[in-house]
Amino acid sequence: MTSSTTYNAQSLRDSLTSRAKELETTLDKQLPRMKGGEANLIEAMRYAVLGGGKRLRGYLVTEVASLFDIPMTKSLYVGASVEMLHAYSLIHDDLPAMDDDDLRRGKPSTHIKYGEAIAILAGDALQTKAFELLAMEEAHESATVRIKLVKALAEASGSTGMVGGQVIDMEGENRHLTLPEVLNLHAMKTGRLICYSAEAGAILGGAAPELHNHIISYGRDLGTAFQIADDVLDATASAEELGKTAGKDNAAGKSTFVSLLGIDDARKEADRLVAKAIRHLAPFGDAADNLRALAEYVVYRKN
Amino acid sequence: MTSSTTYNAQSLRDSLTSRAKELETTLDKQLPRMKGGEANLIEAMRYAVLGGGKRLRGYLVTEVASLFDIPMTKSLYVGASVEMLHAYSLIHDDLPAMDDDDLRRGKPSTHIKYGEAIAILAGDALQTKAFELLAMEEAHESATVRIKLVKALAEASGSTGMVGGQVIDMEGENRHLTLPEVLNLHAMKTGRLICYSAEAGAILGGAAPELHNHIISYGRDLGTAFQIADDVLDATASAEELGKTAGKDNAAGKSTFVSLLGIDDARKEADRLVAKAIRHLAPFGDAADNLRALAEYVVYRKN
Repeated sequence: MTSSTTYNAQSLRDSLTSRAKELETTLDKQLPRMKGGEANLIEAMRYAVLGGGKRLRGYLVTEVASLFDIPMTKSLYVGASVEMLHAYSLIHDDLPAMDDDDLRRGKPSTHIKYGEAIAILAGDALQTKAFELLAMEEAHESATVRIKLVKALAEASGSTGMVGGQVIDMEGENRHLTLPEVLNLHAMKTGRLICYSAEAGAILGGAAPELHNHIISYGRDLGTAFQIADDVLDATASAEELGKTAGKDNAAGKSTFVSLLGIDDARKEADRLVAKAIRHLAPFGDAADNLRALAEYVVYRKN
Repeated sequence: MTSSTTYNAQSLRDSLTSRAKELETTLDKQLPRMKGGEANLIEAMRYAVLGGGKRLRGYLVTEVASLFDIPMTKSLYVGASVEMLHAYSLIHDDLPAMDDDDLRRGKPSTHIKYGEAIAILAGDALQTKAFELLAMEEAHESATVRIKLVKALAEASGSTGMVGGQVIDMEGENRHLTLPEVLNLHAMKTGRLICYSAEAGAILGGAAPELHNHIISYGRDLGTAFQIADDVLDATASAEELGKTAGKDNAAGKSTFVSLLGIDDARKEADRLVAKAIRHLAPFGDAADNLRALAEYVVYRKN
């Protein structure tokens, strides 16, 4: 990965920061504190989803939607929904029976803070809430659009998407995977939800099929580039930089882009995918510059 | 609970049996076996949701929908959806960090058979699939109807419904709950999903508000009666009869309808609720006789 960027990184950083705040406000409002016996559940859900993260997925939803003139007031619901879905997957990923990770975003994992039972249920309820947000009229006036979002999120996150990828990842530990196997695994485990995030913006915008496909292609290449960068970071960065345990893949005996290609070639492949992702945005002109800068950002980030 | 029934129990039994078969076929088709790395996940999902259970929730959906002339070919998707949601909750309930139960429907629990990690993910993916089925055109031609189902299922099963109730249940262990607290806990933990099942039939049927409310009232009383009967069974039946561990509530130091009211008064309260549930069905004439018999069945059942 080269160190210089073509698109305005500062403009993207500002945009990411202000969008993260807006997403945070939306998430906060959708998870109001409660007094009853379920107070602890809500606190755990809030702990897992608020106050952290790059909000890459929520940003993608809202930024793509803005290409189609969808006001942020609406797309933020759909952005918050995918952030809830993502947070649920992280809670369950970190459980002792899964990756057994005590650290997430520089803080104790949800099960360390609230116990395993509450963590499992907080993850469950965040998944439910992600679908509930998509069903709200505030997300889009058309029920047809909302049902398309529900369908797309379910396909991206269920047994043939994210969760299926997690299983393939687990079952691949301590055995050698080929490059196509690693590509498929990550396309499912991480790529599908990133691609969905971009696609959700196009669905909200009622994009014509050709533009819809451009957005999906952008999301797909972005997702793979993101994962390669993640593997490189896991192999090269410290836990302090990452805000989570480093060197996990190697310790778990996982086949990664780095173990298969080496760091240099993995970086080159990430560069190639970023360029490809950016080319898919050609039809959108200058309005897509933040999305172009985002493609560069996902591979040049330090955590 | 009296031992004689007013409505035709044999007709209900036949109807339940044939409906369970149709639901099983729908569930089987929606969870096709796979060859890839996610094969094990799909097997665990199939293990948890196929081949067992009374299919009470799926029956309610389809039977209420039939009051509004919705063909079974459509309502079975929505019935299968709630059975998947229910199966996910049972998998997660049985986990070591939760109820730690090795036995379910007379078979090893999913985590005993497939390990904890796969069990967590199979539960996650079944929840996702439950929402995915509701988004399918096969469930109903109208996107508005489908999005109403998504919203209703999310509200019934998330932090303010089933999952919230599970947390209240856990946090209530080893301390005394009052009768209103126990009523609220079960209304959330079990009642909401049973009530949703009846309501889903009315949503599919596009029921007028008054009839919709009758169905909801029926579902609510049925749900509470079901839970009281469950408490009575837990206190009186053997594990062999139940197909799951017996005497769990007492062992966990839980406040139940039985611990609060005693067995005789708990039975009487169940009887009262059954009669009340049946009265809500008055507008539907003879067509609702199976639903009336069902209300009797849920309190006279032996498992």
